[in-house]
Amino acid sequence: MNHIEKIDILITGGTLLTLSDGMDMIDDAAVGISGGTIRFACTRAEAPASNPVETIDAAGCAVMPGLVNTHTHLPMTCFRGLADDLPLMEWLHDHMFPAEAKHLNREMIYRGALLGVAEMIRSGTTTCCDSYFYESHVAQAAVDAGVRIVAGRGFIDFTPPDAAELGKKAAAAEKFITKWNPLYPMVTPSLFCHSPYTCATETLQLVKRIAGEAGVPFMMHLSETKEEGEIVRSRYGLKPVRYLDAIGVLGGKTAMVHCNWLDEDEMDLLASSGTGVCHCPESSMKLAAGIAPIPKLLDRGVPVGLGTDGCASNNDLDMLLELDTMAKLHKVSTMNPTVMDAAAALQIATTGGARVLGLQRLIGSVEPGKCADLIVLDMKKAHLTPLYHLYSQIVYACRGSDVRDAIIDGKVVMRNRRLLTLDVQKVMDDVREIADRVRRKD
Amino acid sequence: MNHIEKIDILITGGTLLTLSDGMDMIDDAAVGISGGTIRFACTRAEAPASNPVETIDAAGCAVMPGLVNTHTHLPMTCFRGLADDLPLMEWLHDHMFPAEAKHLNREMIYRGALLGVAEMIRSGTTTCCDSYFYESHVAQAAVDAGVRIVAGRGFIDFTPPDAAELGKKAAAAEKFITKWNPLYPMVTPSLFCHSPYTCATETLQLVKRIAGEAGVPFMMHLSETKEEGEIVRSRYGLKPVRYLDAIGVLGGKTAMVHCNWLDEDEMDLLASSGTGVCHCPESSMKLAAGIAPIPKLLDRGVPVGLGTDGCASNNDLDMLLELDTMAKLHKVSTMNPTVMDAAAALQIATTGGARVLGLQRLIGSVEPGKCADLIVLDMKKAHLTPLYHLYSQIVYACRGSDVRDAIIDGKVVMRNRRLLTLDVQKVMDDVREIADRVRRKD
Repeated sequence: MNHIEKIDILITGGTLLTLSDGMDMIDDAAVGISGGTIRFACTRAEAPASNPVETIDAAGCAVMPGLVNTHTHLPMTCFRGLADDLPLMEWLHDHMFPAEAKHLNREMIYRGALLGVAEMIRSGTTTCCDSYFYESHVAQAAVDAGVRIVAGRGFIDFTPPDAAELGKKAAAAEKFITKWNPLYPMVTPSLFCHSPYTCATETLQLVKRIAGEAGVPFMMHLSETKEEGEIVRSRYGLKPVRYLDAIGVLGGKTAMVHCNWLDEDEMDLLASSGTGVCHCPESSMKLAAGIAPIPKLLDRGVPVGLGTDGCASNNDLDMLLELDTMAKLHKVSTMNPTVMDAAAALQIATTGGARVLGLQRLIGSVEPGKCADLIVLDMKKAHLTPLYHLYSQIVYACRGSDVRDAIIDGKVVMRNRRLLTLDVQKVMDDVREIADRVRRKD
Repeated sequence: MNHIEKIDILITGGTLLTLSDGMDMIDDAAVGISGGTIRFACTRAEAPASNPVETIDAAGCAVMPGLVNTHTHLPMTCFRGLADDLPLMEWLHDHMFPAEAKHLNREMIYRGALLGVAEMIRSGTTTCCDSYFYESHVAQAAVDAGVRIVAGRGFIDFTPPDAAELGKKAAAAEKFITKWNPLYPMVTPSLFCHSPYTCATETLQLVKRIAGEAGVPFMMHLSETKEEGEIVRSRYGLKPVRYLDAIGVLGGKTAMVHCNWLDEDEMDLLASSGTGVCHCPESSMKLAAGIAPIPKLLDRGVPVGLGTDGCASNNDLDMLLELDTMAKLHKVSTMNPTVMDAAAALQIATTGGARVLGLQRLIGSVEPGKCADLIVLDMKKAHLTPLYHLYSQIVYACRGSDVRDAIIDGKVVMRNRRLLTLDVQKVMDDVREIADRVRRKD
């Protein structure tokens, strides 16, 4: 008698984009999932006999790894479209910081994050990396919705930190890591410093040291605007990446967000130190902050992931749209249409992101042994017809609303566009209530 | 007894964005339509008593004029994603021209156009301006689907034209205009020369003269790439817009497509001559062709409309995504986040397009007396929550799939995302068959 595999979920039919190192594409595929792990990913003909609890028919669909959003501030859904078409510093200091000062609380954080998570699932993201205030409440929202998260406890200095303040920061960092590290497989704690112009050198060094000792990711915003580089240069006499190198905060398990303003030497330093980059093209376009030199970073072997940034500066969390814009933006900004092809763009949004977050052994591709984080795209639509090349179609024609099913950690979280882990109507109503308060300036 | 208005369709509730000169926004609105014309557009409280044949409940929705796509090649849906990530001239000469030479026929044109029209309705476009081979078959597809079209009969010189050839071109132009001009209110015939580097001076002058005499729009591609300008300069000793001015083809009812490479003098000439510009940002990003100086053209009062270009270079016809990309691209390319706000972007995609096509008295805004071309956007979605500012939400967060209903010329062509004028399944199957032939290189 043949062995029958015990399988929780079998995805059958459709074309599988593995995003493996060999970029294998498998027609008429079968993906077997059990215990949160991918057991096999092959053609239907090659698949072992199995008796799945649930079968997902993916005929006419594309099956691929879930997208990895390496940078967002989920609770900012509450401020989506509150203040647009403004310069970054005016947007930040006259609108975002005041709104946050007035309306931030644990309830707003949780509710806003839940809405963000709902939007992400509906547009194909299965792992996100977030940073905000009260980050534990963001992590909780992700856990409740069944989304994988790298949750970044944020640090910012509103006044220069003294020893007592640094002690408090250290305690907060350690408490956050201890809270989330061992118990929640869907949550990777991390530490996030706002930027080199809003954090003192001592804070950056302290937070980086604690992250390194705990083996969790360390991240920060870097060189989003040109002005920011000038502040760092005038304060420390060094350009930003040289400054970060001098104070010892570059390295592995470390990623810098934005990096719109880097010179060749800074790019070399990021590469030689093993530091990753989170690229948020739409946010930096909308704020007129700049265009990160991503093709040059990729040429140097710098790990690059894609991110949407928060909803207040994008104004959505749709990674499939972000992909499309990213590929087109780099073509026109370098005047080279071959500089980032569709496959390269998809790699950045999956395996690249996984690498930046230090999760490359767990997620980013569909291969036996990896976590079962997959999405099924319905390709049987007018705007996706005809179909010549799947990478092109996904990058240049698909959008979030084409994602039909989403599986995270072996659990179906969306089936036929219906979210199974959240009551979206209630989630939306809860945020509308918060927005009413913001609007009334309560 | 009060007068009861005879109304075919009453749209009731929701917020109406009129896109009128005053940019009026009306909450809890009522729009009355009869005989293809908007009869009233006001608050529900102010609406006259009416006995509508059909009522559309737009509560929680945005109601606005249908989008105007000023430049596309609809049948190129057949080549969507066939050849991507290539330089423009290689894409055109090694892929598009050969595919067209082999597969172009009346059936392909009609079927491909029908698919394009289906995609456009589903993403909120109610008027398009097209140019391709066998353009009458494109116009017929638009008529059959109930979409308003400016259909451009194309002209290109593969060899230098002699008198006989010019005579044939004149006859073809006149025949096309005569065929479509009087009988079809949904079709505006126009004449389209491919470009100044693929059409002889005599051809441009002849076609422009015939268009002018018939009072129909004259259009052409212009300065898409930098190289193109160099060809014109070396051939005629003048930069492109100066050359076109010298041979007399600028003016009213005339629009130039792309215009990525213009100097200040050329922009002044377009403005002083009353020539319009069709802007296709995504296509020019993807082909790394360049970025048109749209803010400078708008400052000079040049009429500017938005277009998606064909599906082979975009790769979709979604004007809501094009809007978003346009607004963000100009912010980052000028490093000025205030250079094109959300309202300005929406104006370009509606009233601006109408002006470029010479249809500003008929379409582009929701006002009594104008053609009833409207769309209803469902704003009750996770990625559109909360809602602070409607222009921002539509430009930066909506996409084509948020369009719920579409009305063109007073007829409902899409209701609850179901197309009423087309069998989309058959339309997709027909194009898949064509794609099979293209793939097999039959």
